[in-house]
Amino acid sequence: MSTRTVGILGGGQLARMMVLAGAPMGLRFELFDPAADACGGPLAPLTVAAFDDRQALAAFAAKVDVVTFDFENVPADSAQWLADQVPVYPPPAALAVAQDRLSEKTLFQQLGIPLPPFADIASRDQLAEKVAAFGLPCILKTRRLGYDGKGQFRLRTEADIDAAWDALGAQVEKTGLILEGFVAFQREVSVVAVRGRDGSFQAYPVTGNWHVDGVLSASVAPARLSDAEQQAAIGYARTLAEHLQYVGVFALELFCRDGELLANEMAPRVHNSGHWTIEGSETSQFENHLRAVLGLPLGDTRMLGHACMLNWIGAMPDAAPVLAQSSGHWHDYGKQPRDGRKVGHATLRDGDASALASALEQVGEALGRQAQVGPAVQALRA
Amino acid sequence: MSTRTVGILGGGQLARMMVLAGAPMGLRFELFDPAADACGGPLAPLTVAAFDDRQALAAFAAKVDVVTFDFENVPADSAQWLADQVPVYPPPAALAVAQDRLSEKTLFQQLGIPLPPFADIASRDQLAEKVAAFGLPCILKTRRLGYDGKGQFRLRTEADIDAAWDALGAQVEKTGLILEGFVAFQREVSVVAVRGRDGSFQAYPVTGNWHVDGVLSASVAPARLSDAEQQAAIGYARTLAEHLQYVGVFALELFCRDGELLANEMAPRVHNSGHWTIEGSETSQFENHLRAVLGLPLGDTRMLGHACMLNWIGAMPDAAPVLAQSSGHWHDYGKQPRDGRKVGHATLRDGDASALASALEQVGEALGRQAQVGPAVQALRA
Repeated sequence: MSTRTVGILGGGQLARMMVLAGAPMGLRFELFDPAADACGGPLAPLTVAAFDDRQALAAFAAKVDVVTFDFENVPADSAQWLADQVPVYPPPAALAVAQDRLSEKTLFQQLGIPLPPFADIASRDQLAEKVAAFGLPCILKTRRLGYDGKGQFRLRTEADIDAAWDALGAQVEKTGLILEGFVAFQREVSVVAVRGRDGSFQAYPVTGNWHVDGVLSASVAPARLSDAEQQAAIGYARTLAEHLQYVGVFALELFCRDGELLANEMAPRVHNSGHWTIEGSETSQFENHLRAVLGLPLGDTRMLGHACMLNWIGAMPDAAPVLAQSSGHWHDYGKQPRDGRKVGHATLRDGDASALASALEQVGEALGRQAQVGPAVQALRA
Repeated sequence: MSTRTVGILGGGQLARMMVLAGAPMGLRFELFDPAADACGGPLAPLTVAAFDDRQALAAFAAKVDVVTFDFENVPADSAQWLADQVPVYPPPAALAVAQDRLSEKTLFQQLGIPLPPFADIASRDQLAEKVAAFGLPCILKTRRLGYDGKGQFRLRTEADIDAAWDALGAQVEKTGLILEGFVAFQREVSVVAVRGRDGSFQAYPVTGNWHVDGVLSASVAPARLSDAEQQAAIGYARTLAEHLQYVGVFALELFCRDGELLANEMAPRVHNSGHWTIEGSETSQFENHLRAVLGLPLGDTRMLGHACMLNWIGAMPDAAPVLAQSSGHWHDYGKQPRDGRKVGHATLRDGDASALASALEQVGEALGRQAQVGPAVQALRA
């Protein structure tokens, strides 16, 4: 393997973890981010420029052998333009689909992947009509540029129709709007999977996820699904990847309701619900993404026991209670604290689910985060 | 854990792997190396200066919270001088002992750690006298500045006394000389262990090692020792670490002869025979070294199955056969090829020793390196 340089659009924690996974493979990296303090910066050269700055993109493309993303909202036309200069994976067309909730859900439907009801919304009247059709509650979202619960409005009563329109109606022209029926799910899970340039495909065991205010709070792998559910979830991911001629790692988020799986959304990149793979799997999602985009053989996605990831939002807690656990691994992205910002995570990994649950309880207790660890502990003890 | 900066004297592959292990913990690094192309350079700021350049050392010390080493032959007085500016671990006094084979072996003897016969050699006559006492073969070595088989002369017959003296006699004044009795060992093993600032101690399972021309070629962990041998080996390491008030990771190399363990040497740093811990243990030697020097709790040294490390010397082989193994992990230090230079390694890790042996055989076959993998395969199948 001669030394190759991977360009990453976006220089945040996902880029940072890709650099850490790729350096042992002898790879070099170039990062591109509008923010001068992007947290990947201390580990690789960083171009600070807007994602539509063609001059900066051209200079960046000239320095790299392949381009990938740590951020799915890079303008699709920038990605497409770059693809004329240098190989870009995942393919910009796949990125474009995932950037638009309507295209994404329409594709799920076409591919026979079950999902909650949804409708394109162009006016307040159409909103009222579809709310009546779907029933309450339901959720109005921007079609584009939403993530981590941003650009969303949950409607609980008919009176919320006006409030939702007031909040998001102005986005109709800019990003488009979509109404989604609410699913009274028992669990949220995700499939993190990878597809190689040669069409090879591997999925990590399905992960169970818990969100707080729309932001991932904790993940446990493997999620305790029936074999049929595991196979269905991974089958949906594979169908999607093959249709999109996808290359790299992606995540498919699903709701579980009474044994039924309903697709929520896909993320065309390494994913927060796959961070546990760094310690919990033979090959991390970050290394597998790099193997895929470089055309190398995919690495094994088998688990090493059970793993739980806890997200640190806003500010880093005290590391000591995690480091004191034999199963504890600490990840500090080196970011400044800020409300709602993902600044780090911890992963606890153990061959024994019950030992892992006990370790989590101790961490929750020591950090006063019983509410965060609670659902994960319960899932591990179920 | 507030952001802390670790200074490393030496910027080679050991520093590089420390940076990769420490970045997830939110640590920053500063490297110091006389070579401008030191392979840690792409991952952390690098000061290029001689190890006795006090001005450069002072500027370096001002940027860091703690100093450690990736190279044991940093002048002991530079280390001691730095220790007056900033905490330095391992303690310079421990470094000084390990830098001098005579001090080191004298200490082993004082501590009751069995070892082969040795003698300080100041003249050709003394060499002849001690060769007669120890019997042939035996090995004349420089007391200082030798590593990876450099600065050594093996005497097989009495006629070799003159040749050995011609080769190394001029070093008497500069580095000193030591004669070591030869041990007809069946196996070479090492204990990689870590001691914290608070005196806590952990050892990895004893590793079996194979050298070619004095350079490590392959390691397998765990080595199949009896419980008594395991305990004795780890006990010697602990005795040594406690006597030296050691802080950080170190390795103790031992010969096994007919169930008896004889100490060869200690390395006061993370060690090539512990590279398998990156994938093969709950906490790598690199992370544990950083935890130790920062005063954090030590991480668990338990193994995840069986591991074999293969060293790549001179030039990197083709990565494909290793990446094609589900248990295969690739490490390319990003160095220019050069005869005898350690440029990378691979680790294969599997829960099942026999599956690991088969994977190694396939790698050996594909790379034409049957001789390199052979002893490891045999050990795993024994």
